[in-house]
Amino acid sequence: MTAYVGTRVPRVDSVAKVTGGAVYAVDIAMPGMLHGAVLRSPHPHARIVSIDRSRARSAPGVKAVVTGSDFPLLFGSAIKDQPFLAIDRVRYVGEPVVAVAAESEVEAQEALDLISVEYEELPAVVDMTAALDPDAPLVHPDLHTYKRGGHEIVPHTNINTLYRYSRGDVDAGFAAADLVIEGVYSAHALSHVALEVHTAIAEYDAGSGGYTLWVSTDRPFLLRNELAEGLGLRSTQVRLIVAEVGGSFGGKGVPIAEAIAVVLARNSGGRPVRVEFTREECLIASQLRVPAIMKLKTGVTRDGLMIARSAEVLWDSGAYTAYTVGVAIRGSQTIVGPYRVPNLRILSRQVYTNKAITGSYRGYGTTQVTWACETQMDEIAAQLNLDPVDIRLKNGYVEGDSYLNGQIMSSVGLTETIVRTAAEIGWGSVEREPAPHLRRGKGIATMIKPTMTPSSSNVTINMEQDGHVLVICAAPEIGAGQDTVLAQIAADAIGIPLSDVSIPATDTALTPYNGPVASSRTTYHMGNAIVSAGAEIRDEILKLAADVFGIDVEELVLRDGSVYEVDGKFKIALKDLLAKFAGEGLSLTVGSRFSSAQSPMLKADPGEEWMSSIFWMLCTQAAEIEVDIETGVIRVIKVAAAADVGKAINPMLVEQQIEGGVVMGLSNGILESFSIRDGRIENGSLADYKIATIQDLPEIVPIIVESVHEEAPYGAKGVGEPAAAATPPAIANALYDAIGVRIRDLPVTPEKVLAALAELST
Amino acid sequence: MTAYVGTRVPRVDSVAKVTGGAVYAVDIAMPGMLHGAVLRSPHPHARIVSIDRSRARSAPGVKAVVTGSDFPLLFGSAIKDQPFLAIDRVRYVGEPVVAVAAESEVEAQEALDLISVEYEELPAVVDMTAALDPDAPLVHPDLHTYKRGGHEIVPHTNINTLYRYSRGDVDAGFAAADLVIEGVYSAHALSHVALEVHTAIAEYDAGSGGYTLWVSTDRPFLLRNELAEGLGLRSTQVRLIVAEVGGSFGGKGVPIAEAIAVVLARNSGGRPVRVEFTREECLIASQLRVPAIMKLKTGVTRDGLMIARSAEVLWDSGAYTAYTVGVAIRGSQTIVGPYRVPNLRILSRQVYTNKAITGSYRGYGTTQVTWACETQMDEIAAQLNLDPVDIRLKNGYVEGDSYLNGQIMSSVGLTETIVRTAAEIGWGSVEREPAPHLRRGKGIATMIKPTMTPSSSNVTINMEQDGHVLVICAAPEIGAGQDTVLAQIAADAIGIPLSDVSIPATDTALTPYNGPVASSRTTYHMGNAIVSAGAEIRDEILKLAADVFGIDVEELVLRDGSVYEVDGKFKIALKDLLAKFAGEGLSLTVGSRFSSAQSPMLKADPGEEWMSSIFWMLCTQAAEIEVDIETGVIRVIKVAAAADVGKAINPMLVEQQIEGGVVMGLSNGILESFSIRDGRIENGSLADYKIATIQDLPEIVPIIVESVHEEAPYGAKGVGEPAAAATPPAIANALYDAIGVRIRDLPVTPEKVLAALAELST
Repeated sequence: MTAYVGTRVPRVDSVAKVTGGAVYAVDIAMPGMLHGAVLRSPHPHARIVSIDRSRARSAPGVKAVVTGSDFPLLFGSAIKDQPFLAIDRVRYVGEPVVAVAAESEVEAQEALDLISVEYEELPAVVDMTAALDPDAPLVHPDLHTYKRGGHEIVPHTNINTLYRYSRGDVDAGFAAADLVIEGVYSAHALSHVALEVHTAIAEYDAGSGGYTLWVSTDRPFLLRNELAEGLGLRSTQVRLIVAEVGGSFGGKGVPIAEAIAVVLARNSGGRPVRVEFTREECLIASQLRVPAIMKLKTGVTRDGLMIARSAEVLWDSGAYTAYTVGVAIRGSQTIVGPYRVPNLRILSRQVYTNKAITGSYRGYGTTQVTWACETQMDEIAAQLNLDPVDIRLKNGYVEGDSYLNGQIMSSVGLTETIVRTAAEIGWGSVEREPAPHLRRGKGIATMIKPTMTPSSSNVTINMEQDGHVLVICAAPEIGAGQDTVLAQIAADAIGIPLSDVSIPATDTALTPYNGPVASSRTTYHMGNAIVSAGAEIRDEILKLAADVFGIDVEELVLRDGSVYEVDGKFKIALKDLLAKFAGEGLSLTVGSRFSSAQSPMLKADPGEEWMSSIFWMLCTQAAEIEVDIETGVIRVIKVAAAADVGKAINPMLVEQQIEGGVVMGLSNGILESFSIRDGRIENGSLADYKIATIQDLPEIVPIIVESVHEEAPYGAKGVGEPAAAATPPAIANALYDAIGVRIRDLPVTPEKVLAALAELST
Repeated sequence: MTAYVGTRVPRVDSVAKVTGGAVYAVDIAMPGMLHGAVLRSPHPHARIVSIDRSRARSAPGVKAVVTGSDFPLLFGSAIKDQPFLAIDRVRYVGEPVVAVAAESEVEAQEALDLISVEYEELPAVVDMTAALDPDAPLVHPDLHTYKRGGHEIVPHTNINTLYRYSRGDVDAGFAAADLVIEGVYSAHALSHVALEVHTAIAEYDAGSGGYTLWVSTDRPFLLRNELAEGLGLRSTQVRLIVAEVGGSFGGKGVPIAEAIAVVLARNSGGRPVRVEFTREECLIASQLRVPAIMKLKTGVTRDGLMIARSAEVLWDSGAYTAYTVGVAIRGSQTIVGPYRVPNLRILSRQVYTNKAITGSYRGYGTTQVTWACETQMDEIAAQLNLDPVDIRLKNGYVEGDSYLNGQIMSSVGLTETIVRTAAEIGWGSVEREPAPHLRRGKGIATMIKPTMTPSSSNVTINMEQDGHVLVICAAPEIGAGQDTVLAQIAADAIGIPLSDVSIPATDTALTPYNGPVASSRTTYHMGNAIVSAGAEIRDEILKLAADVFGIDVEELVLRDGSVYEVDGKFKIALKDLLAKFAGEGLSLTVGSRFSSAQSPMLKADPGEEWMSSIFWMLCTQAAEIEVDIETGVIRVIKVAAAADVGKAINPMLVEQQIEGGVVMGLSNGILESFSIRDGRIENGSLADYKIATIQDLPEIVPIIVESVHEEAPYGAKGVGEPAAAATPPAIANALYDAIGVRIRDLPVTPEKVLAALAELST
C-alpha cells in the first residue's frame, strides 16, 4: 500500500517556480565574475590564417582574449574531435573562434568587433549524401587519429559512425513476401528551444589546476567527465554545481557554453567567467536534432505480416560528433518499430558535414526512425487495403516476445496503447468534408523506445534527527517533475510524509554518481536506488523502535511518519522515537547503488546482450486533422496519446509529459524548420524558427497504460521521450487519410501539401 | 599493515594554505551582498527605553536597520535565553542592540552613529560570588520561563546550572585522612583569539522561509540546529556551507556573527548580508573561557593516597549560557583529576553575571579544574614532603581502574606520560640560581579529559569511476589537521593511495550528520565511521574483482590502489578494474554511521552511565622555569608534554597539537588577562590583551604515548584539547619549586609573584 505513489500530488517545486524563487543557471552570479563573448566563424569551412587580437586586448574592461591555439585540447564523448575554440580551421558557420572575457557583457561583445581573423576558405560539404562521395571534402582529415571509443568509423572519409546489424535471412524474407515496399524518408534538424538559454560560469583554481562550474545540465557526471577528459584532468578536478534546469530535451548534455567558460576561466587570473548564449547562438551553435535520411524496404505477407526489413540510415552529425554516435547506433535499432520482424538488416552510417553540430534530442534517434517506420507502415496498410490499426496490432510486440537480440520482452502494453488510442480518436469514422475547402482524416502511429542499458544510479539518503529526509541524488530537475516523483518514491519507500522529503540540488563533489537524466531512465533507475536506500532507512528505524519497545522488528511498520504495530496499533511518532537518541545525535545515512547491469532480464542471444534494454516504452498516438486544400495548412483537431509507463508514480505528471510530448511532436512535424543555405542557418531567431504556440494546439487526450514492470520501482518505467515521436507520423497518416497525399520528408509544410495535391491531380 | 596510518605524511591542505588558495569564511563574498554592522550596549545592565533609528534608515546605502523588537526570538543550546538582538534590556557591555545592513561596510558603520538608544541603567551584578547573593540583581528574572533541556536551575536566582555528585562517604573519608587540605583556586576569562575573526554571510529565502549561511564553525550541524530552533524552523530550513575554519578552539560553535547575519538577512529583501566582526568585537562580544572559582578540600593518608575530596565550583556564564551549562557539569567532573578517589562530593553552580558571554574553550572546563586540582596536588606533596611525581603515580589511574561512575577504564597510559615527562625534564635536578636575581625550578602537572559521550559521526564515501574517493563528512578542517588524518584513515581502510582521497568542504544539505569537531572526538568517531565505510567500499571492489577473475573474494586484497592475491601476486589496478564497468557507469556509494552509544565499554553504575566516556585523554607536562625575583617575570625554559593518544595516526600532527597546546597553555597561564572594570572589558585589542609570541616560547618536547584503544580506528583516541590544560599548573608548580611561592589565582603575573615574594619575606 502506497500513500503517494500513484497519486496526483502537486509538484514539490511548484511554489518556488511560480514565485520566481527557483534558481536557474541564468540566475547565478559569482562575485568578481567576468562576462564572456564569442567571435564565431562566418564560414562553413576555412583555414584560420591569422588572428589579430591586439586591439581587443587593450579595449576597455577586457581581461582575456583567447584563441584555440592558446587552448589546443579536444573533447567529445565518443570521439574527441571537438576543440574548445577552433584551433586551425573552422568547420561550421557559428563555430567559436575567439573568446573574450570582460568586466561587462557589453564590453565583451564590443571587443569582438576589434578582432580580425583572416580565413582561407576551403571547399565545404553541407549535404549528407554528398558527404559520402569519395571525392567529398573531408571535414576531419585527421579523424583516424582522434581518441575514441570502440565504435567503427571509416578512416579518410566523412563517415564517423558505421553500424551494421542483421538477423535472419532478409533476402529470403523479401523473396517470400507477397509485397515488398520501398521508400525513402527524411527527418530534419530541429532545435530543442529550451526556454533557458545555454549559460555557464566557470572558475579556475591555479593551485589545484581544477575547475568549478555552475551549469544547467541534465547529466552532471557525464558532462563533468567529458570536460575533465577534454581538459586532461581527473574527474574530481572538475566540480559541477547544478541549478534548476530550464528545459533540456537532450540538449544540455555536452560542453557548450561550458566549453567557452572553462577556456576563459583558465585565462582570467582566477576570476569566474560567465558565458550566456543569445537565443541566436542557441539556435545556430549549440546542437540540433540529427537529420536523417532513411531508406526502408519491407516485405510483408498478403495479410500484412512483416517478414523482412532492410533499413539504410544516413545521419548527419554536423561538424562534430557530440552525442550523435549513440543516436546513429541506438536510434537505427528502433527503425523496426515495435514489431516482430524475423529477418532484418540495418546499415547505419553517420557523416560529418560543414554544418551546425547535432546531437541528442528527446528520443535519441527515435523521433527520426519512427517517422520512417510508421509512415511506411501506413503505406503497407494502404497498399494491402488493411486497416492501419489492425496491421499494427497484428505485428506489434506482446508480452513474452523476443526483441531484436533475442531478449525476452516484458511489460509490453503496446496492444492496449493501440486499442485505447483508436477508441479515443473514434477510429473508423470521420466527417470527411466539413467545408468545401476542408478535408478531415484520422491517422495512427506507434513507437518503441528502449532505455540506456546498462546504467546506474547512486543515492545517499540522510535522515535528520527531526525525521526530515534529504535524498542526495544527481538527478537535476529539468522541468519534467522528477523531484516530485523521486520524493513520492522516497516517502513511500521509507514510510514518511512527502513534506518530510527534500531533494537538494546537485554538486558533483558531494552528490553521488548518477547517469544522465535522459533516456527516460530517472524514475526507474534512481527510483530503484531510492527504494533500496529507503527500505534500509526504514529498517533501521524499525530496529530502533523494536529495541525501544522490546518488540520483534517484524511486528512493526513505519507509515506516514509513525511506527505502528502490524495490526495497526500506533506506537510512536518518528520524531519522538528519534528524540530518544538525541543524546548521541542520531541521524541515519544510507548509500545505495542501482545498476541495471546485473538484471537477468537482459539475457539475450550471445554477443548481443549489449542491445538489451531494461525496459521498453511504448506509445501510440492517433490524430484527427483537418487540411485546407486551398492553402495546404493542416489544423490538428485532436490527438489521443497512450503511453505504457509501467506504473504512473504521479498520473498528473505523466499526463503532462504526454501532453508536452504531443505539443513538441506537432511542432516538430508541421511547424519547425531551419532554412539552411550553403551550411549557414538563415533563420536564427524565434521570429523565424517557428515553434508551436497555444493557437496551434489540438485537444490532447493523454492515456496512461500500466503494464507493470517487475523490477521497476512500484512497476514504473519512463515517459519523457516517447510521446514526441509518434505525433508527426500520426498527423501525416491522417493527412493521407484525408486527401490521399503522402509526405515522406519532414516537416509536413503547407507548401509540400499543396505540391503533393497538385501532383496527385496531374 | 597500514601504508599511511602512523606515518608523518604532509598535510593534505598544506599547498592550498601556503599559496593562499584556501577559502576561509572571511574570503567569501556573495553577489549583491550587503554588509552588516552592530550597535552594541555601552551598559552592563539597562532597560532599553527607546530606539530612534529614523536617521540611520535614511542614511546613504542603508538597506535595513533592525532592532530586537523586530526579531523577538531566543536561542541557546541548553537554555533558550539569548536574543538575536537585545529585546527589552541589555545584559552586558557589547551586547548587540541594533543591526544595520548597508551597501558597504563603511556605510553600515557610519549609520550606527545616527542611531539613538535611550537606556535606563539597572543595577548590575558583575562578580560571580556576588551573583549568588539572594539580594543580587537578577540578570534573567524570567529564567524559569525559558525553554531548556533537563538540567537543574534555581529559579528566581542567577543560578542557571546546579549540579551535585557524590560517591562514597566524603565526611568519613576526611575523618580517616591523615591530612586534610583546603584551598580556593580561580581560573580567569580568556579569549580564543582565533586568527580568523567571526564572519558569516546569511541569505533568506522568502519562498521557503529558510536561510543559507556561509560560516566558519567547528560544528555545522549543531550550529545549524541551534539556529533553526532559535528561528522556529525545522533543521533543514537552515543550510550551512562551511569554509576552511581559521581557528576555533571551541569558540566557533554558537551563533555569534551568524545571529546578526540572519536578523539582517531576514530584513534585506532577499539580498545576502555579510557580517564580519572586528577584533575588538571578537574579544568583547563573542565568547570567553568560563571563569571559575574552585574550592577544593582533599583528605589523604600520610603517604599521599587520596581518600576523599569535596569540590565546590562556581562558574560564571556571563550574560547568557551559550555552551557553559555543559562546561559547568562536565568540567566539574574532572576536578578529581586522573586519580582514584573513593569518596567524592562535587557541587557545581554556574551564575549569570552582567558580563561578556562565556562558553566552550579548548578543554571544555578541563583547563580550569586542572589548575585547581594540580595546584592542590602539589600542595599536598609539599605538605607531606612527598615527590610530586611519586604522589601522582601513586594515585593515578591505571588500566582497569574504575572511573567516577564505576566505568572500567581502558587505554590508560597515564603512568607512562608521567614517567616519560619527568625523565625528559630531568626531574630531581635543577640549577637553582643561575644568576643572583634568577631562580629556577621544575614542576609537573597532569590531567584527564573524557570525550563527549555518546556521540555519532556519519560519513558517505563515493568512489568515482577513476578510483578517486570522496569522503563526504561534516568535519570542517579547523587547522588541526583532521583532513589529513581522516584521509590517511580512508586510504588505509580502503587500500588506495592517499592522493586518491579528497574531503570536500561541508554543506549541511548534502553532507551527512556529524557531531562537533570538538571534544577531541573527530579522529575517533569520524575515523571509525570511515573505517567501516571504507571496508565496505573495499569489499565491494574485491567482490567485483573476484567476479571478473572467477576467484574467491577471500583470496584477494586491495592495497595501494591495486588488487593482489593474498600471496602478493598482482592482479589488476583499481582503475583498470573499474574501467571494466564503465558501460554501466559504476561508481560506489556507501553510507556509514558510527555511534559510541552502543559500546559495551560504557557500562557503569546504574543511573550513572551518562558520565561514561568512550575514551580518556591523559596528558602530563613538566616545566622548567626561571623567575626573576626582582621583576617577578617568569621565563619558561622547557616544557616536556606527554599525551596518551591511543595511536598517533600522524605523529607529526600529534606533535604539532601538543606543541600548540603548550603554547596556548603557557599563554593562558602567565600572559593572557582581561582587564574588566564594572563589567566592561577595558583591553579589547591585541595590543592590550597579550598572547604568547614566539619570544615567549620555551623548548617544547612533545612525547607521544600510545595505549591503544580497542574500539578506536587503528587504536587512536584524541589529542586536541588536553595539551593546553596542564601547562599553567606545571609552570606554577615549578615556580613554587623555584621560590616557594604558591599562586592560586590565574594568571601567574609578575605582580602576583612579587606580591607573594614580599608576603613570603614578611
